[in-house]
Formats: sequence, C-alpha cells, structure tokens
Amino acid sequence: MKIITFLSDFGLKSSYVSQMKGIALSMTDAKLVDISHEITHHNIYEGAFVLKTIIPYFPVGTVHIGVVDPGVGNSRKGIVVTTSTHIFVGPDNGLLIPAAKKLGKFTVYEIKNQELMLNNVSNTFHGRDIFTPVAAHILNGVYFDEIGPIIKNYVDLNFEITEIKNKIVMGQIIYIDGFGNIITNIEKYKIRPLLEYDKELIIFTGTKKIKLPFVKTYSSVKKGEALATIGSNDYLEISVNQGNASKLLNVKAGDKVKIFLA
Amino acid sequence: MKIITFLSDFGLKSSYVSQMKGIALSMTDAKLVDISHEITHHNIYEGAFVLKTIIPYFPVGTVHIGVVDPGVGNSRKGIVVTTSTHIFVGPDNGLLIPAAKKLGKFTVYEIKNQELMLNNVSNTFHGRDIFTPVAAHILNGVYFDEIGPIIKNYVDLNFEITEIKNKIVMGQIIYIDGFGNIITNIEKYKIRPLLEYDKELIIFTGTKKIKLPFVKTYSSVKKGEALATIGSNDYLEISVNQGNASKLLNVKAGDKVKIFLA
Amino acid sequence: MKIITFLSDFGLKSSYVSQMKGIALSMTDAKLVDISHEITHHNIYEGAFVLKTIIPYFPVGTVHIGVVDPGVGNSRKGIVVTTSTHIFVGPDNGLLIPAAKKLGKFTVYEIKNQELMLNNVSNTFHGRDIFTPVAAHILNGVYFDEIGPIIKNYVDLNFEITEIKNKIVMGQIIYIDGFGNIITNIEKYKIRPLLEYDKELIIFTGTKKIKLPFVKTYSSVKKGEALATIGSNDYLEISVNQGNASKLLNVKAGDKVKIFLA
Repeated sequence: MKIITFLSDFGLKSSYVSQMKGIALSMTDAKLVDISHEITHHNIYEGAFVLKTIIPYFPVGTVHIGVVDPGVGNSRKGIVVTTSTHIFVGPDNGLLIPAAKKLGKFTVYEIKNQELMLNNVSNTFHGRDIFTPVAAHILNGVYFDEIGPIIKNYVDLNFEITEIKNKIVMGQIIYIDGFGNIITNIEKYKIRPLLEYDKELIIFTGTKKIKLPFVKTYSSVKKGEALATIGSNDYLEISVNQGNASKLLNVKAGDKVKIFLA
Repeated sequence: MKIITFLSDFGLKSSYVSQMKGIALSMTDAKLVDISHEITHHNIYEGAFVLKTIIPYFPVGTVHIGVVDPGVGNSRKGIVVTTSTHIFVGPDNGLLIPAAKKLGKFTVYEIKNQELMLNNVSNTFHGRDIFTPVAAHILNGVYFDEIGPIIKNYVDLNFEITEIKNKIVMGQIIYIDGFGNIITNIEKYKIRPLLEYDKELIIFTGTKKIKLPFVKTYSSVKKGEALATIGSNDYLEISVNQGNASKLLNVKAGDKVKIFLA
Repeated sequence: MKIITFLSDFGLKSSYVSQMKGIALSMTDAKLVDISHEITHHNIYEGAFVLKTIIPYFPVGTVHIGVVDPGVGNSRKGIVVTTSTHIFVGPDNGLLIPAAKKLGKFTVYEIKNQELMLNNVSNTFHGRDIFTPVAAHILNGVYFDEIGPIIKNYVDLNFEITEIKNKIVMGQIIYIDGFGNIITNIEKYKIRPLLEYDKELIIFTGTKKIKLPFVKTYSSVKKGEALATIGSNDYLEISVNQGNASKLLNVKAGDKVKIFLA
C-alpha cells in the first residue's frame, strides 16, 4: 500500500491542499492522509513538532510531504530526507529533520532533477509544483540518487535541547494543542527517572509560578484543576482537567519553562 | 470494501486524528472517512447527535470510532457496540448509544483483551492506543466475543425524550450547525401528524417567544426571515433563510424549547 | 481510478460532508477528496473561484460535486456540466461554470431523472440526496442523456471581466486566501505583456492607494513589505511577505481595484 501524508500551514479554506492531492492522484494510486494544515503560518518549529509526533504510527514506506515554507521562491533548497523506514519531502528549513532524527540515521538529498517537477514551477507554491510530484515519483520507484546530490549542510532546529541540573529542568514550550494542553520539549525518558507519579513539582513560566501534581492522566485530578503528566507523545505536558491550561498560564509556543522537582 | 469513520473533539490543528489514521493504515487497507473533529470539547451529547445523523448513509459493515472522552484514563470502560449493520468503538459514556439505537437491536461488549490494543497504552489517548486497533482488528475478522464480555450496564444519554400534550411540545436543542440552524430533539415522525406545512407555530426559548411559519425549506420565506422546518436529519429545525437563527434567538445546545402548535 | 471531489460551504463541524461521503461509498469505490468546505456561507462567487483553481491538477474523469446552494429547495435547477475531461455536479447558480469554461467547450444537463436520486429527497440538502448519487451513477456508467435534457439558459457569473486601457487595469478582488493574500480577477496572460518584473505599479482600492514592486515571489521583498506578484493560480495577487495583505489594505472579496502600470 502506498501512502502520502500532507502537513502544511495552508489552512483548509483555500484549495492549496487539494491542488497537491490532485497532482498526487494524477501520478499514483496512493492513499492520502492529512496530518494537519492548521500549523501557525510560517511556524517551522510547530510544524516540525507535529510532524515528529505522527512518525511512530505510520507504516514503513510512507512518504511525508511537509510544507511550512516562508522562504519559498528564494534560494532555500528543496530536500528529500530518507531513513530506514519513512521518507520526507519539503523545504530545507529544519521542518523535516526532527521527525527524521527520531527514526535514527538519515540522509538528505537536494532536489535538483527538474524532470521530477511539474513543467511550470511557480515561484510561490513548491508544495504543489515540486514536493508532491517528487513524492509521487519516489512511490513510483525513482532512485534517490536521481533526485539530486546528498548534502550535509542542511538546516536543523535542534529543538529538544533541555538542561537538567540539581533537580531543576530548563526547557521550552513547543506546542499548545487544541484543548489548550501545554506540551514542553522535555522528553519522558529524561524526566521519568527523576520524578514519581503523585509527587508535586513547581513550574515557572515567564511571569507565573505554579505548584502541580505529577499524575498519570487528566482525570487524576478534579475537573478544572491543573496537573502535569506525560502526554500521549511522551513529552511532559501541563494540563487542566477538562479545561484550558494555556489560558490559565497565559503562555505560548516558544516560551521558556523552568521546573523544580521536589 | 472496508470503511472506518472517525468522530472526535480533537480539532484538526493537532496530529491526534492522523495518529489514529496511521494506526488504521498500518493494520488494514480500509477507507478512512472523517465525520467531524470539531465536536465541542468534552461535549458527549453533541458528539452523540452528530454520530447518529450519519448512520443512514454508510454501507453495511462500516466501523465507526467515536472519541469524545473526558474520562480517559480513569475507570470508564471502553466498548464495542454491534448492530445488525454497523459497528461502533469508543468510550462507555453514552456517545455511541443513540446511533446504535437508531439501527434497532444492539449489543455492548467491554474491551478487555489487551492483545487487541497497542503494546504501550497511554493514559490520555485511548482513541489511538485502544479504539483504533480494536476497530482494525474487527475489520480483520476478530470475533466479537474475543473483545471482552457483554455488558448491560452501559451508560446511556436518553436524549430524545420529548413530551407532547394538548398541542404543546416540550423538547430541547441538541445541536447548532455551522450555519446557525437550531436543531431540536423533536423528531419528524412525532410532529408531522400534528402540523401541516404553511401553518404557524410559536416557539418559546428561555427568554424569547417567536411566531414562525412551518415550511418545506429555507427559501420558502424571504432572505433574513425566520422559519421552522424538518431538517435534513428529520428533526424539527429553526432557521433563518441565509441567516443565523442561533444568533437571532440567542440559544445554545442544551436549552429547552416549548412549542405551541396552532 | 474513480475520483469524486467535494466543495461546499458546510464547514467541518457538522456531519453534512460525511453524509455525502457515506452515500458515495455506498455506491462506488471512488477516492474522495475535499477541495474546501470553508467557502463563506452562500458565497457562490468565492466557491466558483476555488473550484476553478483546482481544475488543472486532477486526472481526466474526475467528478466534482459543488454545493454552495442558498436556493436549495426552491425552483433553482440541479445540473451536470460535462467537458472533454472533467464532470461537475451541483446547483444551477453559476458555481460550476467558471471551472467548466476553463476546460473549453462544455454541455449543461438539467438533473431530472428521479431514479438517479435518493428515494426521499429532502428540501434542504440536495448535495446528499441528489448531487452525490448522480455523481456516483456517472462514475458507474450512466449515460449523460439519462440525466435529463441539455439546457442553454444556465446561470453564469462572468466573473473574469476586466478592462485594460492606457496602462490602467480595472478589476476586482475575487478571493482572500488563508494567509491574507489578495487575489484579483486579473489573469496572468492579460497583464504580463504589459508589465516587467521588478517594475513598480500603483494600486487603488476603495480608500487606499499604494505603490508596490511587481516581483517574482513573496521573499523578493523584505519580511513585512507589500508586493504584487503572479500567484500560483495565475492571477495578479497582492501580498505582504510573511504578513497579511488583506488587513493592510482593509479589503474583501468583491471590492474593485484599479491598477496603474508605470
């Protein structure tokens, strides 16, 4: 089974996403799956996080197209990133790399072969004119070395760098989900050895300091109460049971957090 | 043809829905159809209504996954509801039952068999870790009695209880659609014997009283005028032709309505 | 491969779109693709533009269902529009015609044959009860002349009429996309012979007058600066690099524009 996924900041009002799907269906019989098209406009960081979260769940051989692309039409490269299981196609701006890293070793090819693109490449929409036809050609059997040269100087975001010292964790908010849950860049495997369930921790954000129980799930506390938990993507998450934690703490993606473990 | 549908309150910004789809495509070649992911957060009642409305239109054998699940991770059960034609998978909180009832007799199985779940079940996302793999296993031929025991004490919402006496109908608003149409829980088969088209009726809401013509369709009245009609899902509906009835009457899902038939 | 696309103003909160998809999957094994369901309610003009933009990208034989239908249930006709490559199904209100025109010669059939519709046609939802089953029957091999008679007096919008005289172009805004890019009805082939890249032009809207560089892509100017370019759908577009041009100029779809070429 062939699968292409699509992630972008295009929204669903315009036809940009469906134009890409039309190309994909003109060239393959792949199944097409939307990851999200509501990434905050031009927010590569947020797009990279969302793309990374879906990686464990798709079958081997899936091709992922990511288009959060504020530099379209200028000199930024287009790339294909190959791993042992999944393939990524999109701009060379860091968007694809965290997802690829999660899969271990990876190789970055610059897209140079114009025969793999649409005949008339626009200056404003490479998702349709380059990335989607390249993804379809890959599913149809094109060899990676026909795409273009391997490059080493690709752009990276390094967005999972945290610091843990003396039971103080310095991290960052990388995502606010649709429920208002605050997802940090602090990974489960780093914090679980230091913290038991049902203990308390203290979180500082820019302007707020709050003591929270570290619990197994949202409903471990009463409706409306705040909590910290390991979210379903294995990051430390700050939530309010059936409420909106991002409003309570007045934070946004990109804000720093400092956590004191008791 | 295998079909899985998805209904949730996850929204489309996050990757939660696509994580479920990745699992589904890792286990089956089913066609995947979104019902809605914009159910008001944690509003089981609204989700149950929307799920019920699609039942007449899908082929026999469709498996529907519903995830409006404020109690995830606590002691609420996961269930599979089987009918003579469709199958439902989701939390035991009432979400699935109105749709199942519409299809006649149904049986509720508690999901107990851990072999049908993902290896690591999170505490916050049973839609991905339990309901989707169970749905896929069902399409792949698992017997219902391998899922778990039949239970009788499932949660029900009973949301279609109306009272009709002396040409006065007591009911409730169960949904406001994207156009602002107000959909009540008063079913066509109950009210049509009492009411002819082009007669008037009077509707009381909490604070407003309004006289409306009962007509065949929106455009039976002038643009901007209010009306009552039988909506496309066979419930009594209050609308404004090319306008927004919910703003006019200032009502929301859950509000009571009292209707005087002339 | 069979493909049905769906365009509507239904939004994604309600189940209207999925009810149509259920019908389509009950009758065919077509691939189903969403174009957009976030057309502004009842805005036929905007829907016609969006539908037109996707035409170059879908394979021959695709059937497109368009439902922006403020006149549903009154005397407006339902139509099928056939071209040499694509087929359109929807209301006779102008929605389908610009897309069909783009493909050259076309023929308009009125939908009259009740055997191609659902058994119980509602007064409020012809997208589900008429247009989707007709689309499925077409993919299943129904002859066009079984649908109903050819009609000549179909409704048209004529929305691409512009006037160019003495280097002054009179046009109209036909769409604001999700990024706030302002798309005019001035087509590339009309304006490119008159205008070179990196020249300036002056745009008058109702209340504002602004001088802009005409450039190849958004990032040809600095972040936050305004520009004019040929957008990815080959219309003249006014944008702000990584910003929102519609807020800057305070315009909306339907507004007139007057452009002075230097």
